[in-house]
Amino acid sequence: MAIIDYPALPQRERILKIAAQLFARHGYHAVGMSDLQKAVGLGRGALYHHIRSKEDLLYEILREYIQELGVTAESIRDAEADPTRRVALLGEHLVRKIASNQAELTVCFKELHSLSADRHSEVLGYHARYERIWRECMEEGARKGQFRPYSYIVFKGILGMYFYSYLWMQPNLPQAADDIAEHFVELTLRMLAP
Amino acid sequence: MAIIDYPALPQRERILKIAAQLFARHGYHAVGMSDLQKAVGLGRGALYHHIRSKEDLLYEILREYIQELGVTAESIRDAEADPTRRVALLGEHLVRKIASNQAELTVCFKELHSLSADRHSEVLGYHARYERIWRECMEEGARKGQFRPYSYIVFKGILGMYFYSYLWMQPNLPQAADDIAEHFVELTLRMLAP
Repeated sequence: MAIIDYPALPQRERILKIAAQLFARHGYHAVGMSDLQKAVGLGRGALYHHIRSKEDLLYEILREYIQELGVTAESIRDAEADPTRRVALLGEHLVRKIASNQAELTVCFKELHSLSADRHSEVLGYHARYERIWRECMEEGARKGQFRPYSYIVFKGILGMYFYSYLWMQPNLPQAADDIAEHFVELTLRMLAP
Repeated sequence: MAIIDYPALPQRERILKIAAQLFARHGYHAVGMSDLQKAVGLGRGALYHHIRSKEDLLYEILREYIQELGVTAESIRDAEADPTRRVALLGEHLVRKIASNQAELTVCFKELHSLSADRHSEVLGYHARYERIWRECMEEGARKGQFRPYSYIVFKGILGMYFYSYLWMQPNLPQAADDIAEHFVELTLRMLAP
């Protein structure tokens, strides 16, 4: 499948979108700066005007998307007091995020270990912040008698079902994302039922 | 964590076990033949006596483990006619396989795209063969009224829960594998209930 170009985006954002597609398709280590130059159609000097290194690109993609997951999850937590409705909103948001940014999320799931140690820890922190919102929702639902007693394995099983979908979801099918979101929320509530 | 050595294994199998740990930890592309030489404690000539290339190593790991999943799944299918009991056996086997070969399964899940095109297709074929056993079990359970009507999204959601566990499972804790297997089978049956 061809790389999508996004000509309307500011150059820096366009470079990030194209880099994410290359990293997702070939793996971070297999993509060279010359491949990226070719894909964005910029000379070496023009490309380095926008970005300093390949690892900077990887870091920016991971930071942006994993941080955003946490920020949105926190706003869902603050807006929805009911754990059952909250877990449904968290699930819908996650499916839609993966569906509409599949290349970026693929890079997030597959290339975290390619970051340098400092950045790796930083991004793991954003990920932990995101997972904490899910965990607290499940714990609260258990206390209120809406969910089964909290279990780490159930928590990880549910998130695994969502996270793994980046590998098989068909992009560019908005109705499919709706369908997946609806099924996954139903499955989540089955898994959490008392 | 230190690399586990397996001194009792024949040299070739030992090299595969050590290579899997290096690939799982650092990513296939980041590991050079010199890193592998150092980890196995063999000179260049001795190492090349056992393996021809780094890609051969990757291919052997993926082929062996994904093929074995399919072979065992087929024997489970042939031995257990009841879809409910069969899906439980498939789930238990998958959890135990991931728990006892976490490095190899991590390489299977993360590095499939690093194979050359021919080998990539071949290994994808083994994976499809494995998933087919699960799908047929869910379809049969649906026909017999034991499970909900078959749904591709439910099928992928269930397998995602299992597959993703390579990322968070703690190795070397056999009692944890039992616990995960028991919980995941219970979750699978909740997800499939009519």
